[in-house]
Amino acid sequence: MSNWPDLAGRLEDSTHILPVRVYYEDTDFTGIVYHGSYVRFFERGRSDMLRMIGIHHAELQEGGADGRSLAFAVRGMTLDFARPATIDDVLTVRTQLLSARGAKIELHQEIWREVEKLVSANVTVAVITSEGRPTRLTERMRESLGKITPAS
Amino acid sequence: MSNWPDLAGRLEDSTHILPVRVYYEDTDFTGIVYHGSYVRFFERGRSDMLRMIGIHHAELQEGGADGRSLAFAVRGMTLDFARPATIDDVLTVRTQLLSARGAKIELHQEIWREVEKLVSANVTVAVITSEGRPTRLTERMRESLGKITPAS
Amino acid sequence: MSNWPDLAGRLEDSTHILPVRVYYEDTDFTGIVYHGSYVRFFERGRSDMLRMIGIHHAELQEGGADGRSLAFAVRGMTLDFARPATIDDVLTVRTQLLSARGAKIELHQEIWREVEKLVSANVTVAVITSEGRPTRLTERMRESLGKITPAS
Amino acid sequence: MSNWPDLAGRLEDSTHILPVRVYYEDTDFTGIVYHGSYVRFFERGRSDMLRMIGIHHAELQEGGADGRSLAFAVRGMTLDFARPATIDDVLTVRTQLLSARGAKIELHQEIWREVEKLVSANVTVAVITSEGRPTRLTERMRESLGKITPAS
Repeated sequence: MSNWPDLAGRLEDSTHILPVRVYYEDTDFTGIVYHGSYVRFFERGRSDMLRMIGIHHAELQEGGADGRSLAFAVRGMTLDFARPATIDDVLTVRTQLLSARGAKIELHQEIWREVEKLVSANVTVAVITSEGRPTRLTERMRESLGKITPAS
Repeated sequence: MSNWPDLAGRLEDSTHILPVRVYYEDTDFTGIVYHGSYVRFFERGRSDMLRMIGIHHAELQEGGADGRSLAFAVRGMTLDFARPATIDDVLTVRTQLLSARGAKIELHQEIWREVEKLVSANVTVAVITSEGRPTRLTERMRESLGKITPAS
Repeated sequence: MSNWPDLAGRLEDSTHILPVRVYYEDTDFTGIVYHGSYVRFFERGRSDMLRMIGIHHAELQEGGADGRSLAFAVRGMTLDFARPATIDDVLTVRTQLLSARGAKIELHQEIWREVEKLVSANVTVAVITSEGRPTRLTERMRESLGKITPAS
Repeated sequence: MSNWPDLAGRLEDSTHILPVRVYYEDTDFTGIVYHGSYVRFFERGRSDMLRMIGIHHAELQEGGADGRSLAFAVRGMTLDFARPATIDDVLTVRTQLLSARGAKIELHQEIWREVEKLVSANVTVAVITSEGRPTRLTERMRESLGKITPAS
């Protein structure tokens, strides 16, 4: 969307950076952001990083040359909630590729508010068929992911 | 599920009644339930009313005798938020069928906390095919809905 | 946030326009956007319109000169779901002020995908105190809202 | 709520068991339950376990004898997503206390569909003041948690 140039965030030195605003829907009665909301923010970061390197969910869903419909599914996640965000905050979701091999992608993700790190996560994502079975990354996925240098 | 007899609520005199607990996820930073959460609660009430009369989403999705995959889609909704709910509250979602003809089901729904009515809604639901096109209620749906007397 | 100039959308001729990406979290098993997600998108549009004219939730919550803590609460909403959105779509939420008087703000909102209108809504919002009681718009709110010409 | 005896689940041999129905809101376009939904289900399990032993969020929020307003905040979480759930499924959230000391509670949680384990989690929860500072478990919390035998 040329009209909204930053909508999918930016890739800077192989780190994907996505701004996320905190709205009513993200908070809970304790006055801060609900812990489950960060899980949604991390997914937005992963989706937009994939989008920027040419991997689109809708396209995977429709199937490729061989007609298989594919999707990504989260297999594992470790979350560390260090500091809370609150309503109106502007956060940035930072996403780094750690590795991509076989049927799995490993990522490291962080959520920052200016110079403070609020939440960090390690995430394992698998490629699955429409029947839910894990399957190897396609050649095209590997090529796309090859555009990003994995974090060491 | 015989082990959890009330999980899908109860049908009392053609009104479906579903208990819903307010959790963290349903509230926002103003200390009360987020208005969008009631929209989710109403959907739970409709799904469980349909379930009790024998209409299951999973089954529709898989397709019937003629192989068509069907789903319900909300077409219109009028919401009146009179009083707020808060964390830990036990609410009841009350769902009444108003009419079912052609491709459309009309319902009236209310959310109560003991003797207080908190939210009310009128909802129009359409039956759609997997391509998103509206289609007539199936014979089986009409038979199932016939078990409930529409509210006057 | 000067780094993300469009994050709160844009005001064009008294209509606020906010881009919204459809993510996993917004869709459901029928393959399209869950109807409750549009309710969240509309709230984002309202919050960002208010933000652009100088009304911030966090600031209201902390209270003004007279120390009262205030918040906005949705009182009524009429929704018309005409066409569905799907994963990866870029939507725009269009928000117009209809009126602001007493304790109430009336708005008209629409969600578009390029040249297609998908969903429209009329929304009534009230100003409430921290005890949940409706209260008149403050002088400062009325001044801020005065920057926008109500749609006729 | 005597009218809905199972609404907060059951305590069986120090394991809390909560039934959870999968609704539209919990699924995504890939046809299965969105991974973030399990995070919400786990929170429901923890809240209802605490409720059954006499710890209520609303009461904590209002403050105790010494007037301090307290809440629980998730500090860390490790999630393993083994198998997916789908629409209409009845799941059970199983919650076990591992330890409760200082300002922290450690729990192990699992989500099952009949005889299949779908998701498991280890969760660290802290007690925080209304200013977001961690604080020791109160005497009353420790007494309540003492009713449950920690899993070894």
